[in-house]
Amino acid sequence: MASVYCALVHHPVVDRAGEDITTSITNLDVHDIARSARTYGLRGYFIVSPIEAQHPVVQRILDHWCEGSGRKRFPERAEALSIVEISLSVEDAIARIEAREGRSPRLVVTSARSGLDRTSYEAEAARLAQDPRPTLLLFGTGHGLSDRLLRRADALLEPIQGPTDYNHLSVRAAAAITLDRLFGREPAPNGPI
Amino acid sequence: MASVYCALVHHPVVDRAGEDITTSITNLDVHDIARSARTYGLRGYFIVSPIEAQHPVVQRILDHWCEGSGRKRFPERAEALSIVEISLSVEDAIARIEAREGRSPRLVVTSARSGLDRTSYEAEAARLAQDPRPTLLLFGTGHGLSDRLLRRADALLEPIQGPTDYNHLSVRAAAAITLDRLFGREPAPNGPI
Repeated sequence: MASVYCALVHHPVVDRAGEDITTSITNLDVHDIARSARTYGLRGYFIVSPIEAQHPVVQRILDHWCEGSGRKRFPERAEALSIVEISLSVEDAIARIEAREGRSPRLVVTSARSGLDRTSYEAEAARLAQDPRPTLLLFGTGHGLSDRLLRRADALLEPIQGPTDYNHLSVRAAAAITLDRLFGREPAPNGPI
Repeated sequence: MASVYCALVHHPVVDRAGEDITTSITNLDVHDIARSARTYGLRGYFIVSPIEAQHPVVQRILDHWCEGSGRKRFPERAEALSIVEISLSVEDAIARIEAREGRSPRLVVTSARSGLDRTSYEAEAARLAQDPRPTLLLFGTGHGLSDRLLRRADALLEPIQGPTDYNHLSVRAAAAITLDRLFGREPAPNGPI
């Protein structure tokens, strides 16, 4: 499997009315998505926020769990949070992946809105299992990623849909389901690319 | 699809050492799992806790989002939280389902621990699609459901495993993935029962 990263985007995302906003970082998003990303073998998890004042808060959370008594008492939490990095922008996360991997990542985005040119989870899982290029998966807070990010993507995944017409999953649940659909099963031997 | 319910169990669950404990109710567990349960068409979501002092706190959360300005501003949140009920015990939840459905539910439990007699998600999904009996899915907080509950179950699902040996998902993520695996796909036309 190629190197896969994910990012939780706090800007640019949209509000209920579709306007670009910046959301606040929340503690449980850091923990839950780190644990899911670690479970499914991701190389890194970026917390993307342009609000520099919140970066030291996240760093304190990471330091608490990754060092000293936090690490000693809850080593599995340290193992998950050790893959977390804070970045100012999606561009910053892409640049760091490029520096580490020697090539820029494919950008795969998620959205609860349906539309044209959506990629199925099966097709994306098959590609991820074979494509050597690194990949960055973007998850949006608020009411989802801004169209600016959706337009830049190499692949736009289908919305997660259950047997009802309700599609207001938390970003923590949506990220977990997305990772499970992409990495939680053996890829079909003759699956589509 | 038969009526399916889920419950988030705060007692009896175990701690790191395997001892029975009671955990506290947390706000985000109420919201996240309600949103996931609503997405996948569940009929109800029980918050199970013997700590009666915490019940009015949960009721205040539900009232805030299901009535008045909370409901008006965030109708989709009210739609999810309207399926939430508080109960003192798993037995209490079972009795309420029985009163409503006219028969007692099958008890399906989840555990991050592997062992004998685990049921695959495919087999359980196929059964749920055809079995008219109501079902109650139990999710454990802390370090998982007590053996007392595991022994009572009609089916014990496989642990959720990614491509790594790390299996410390949050209960919010584990519940979302479980529901997606059971209800998020078309059942195989000739799937096992």
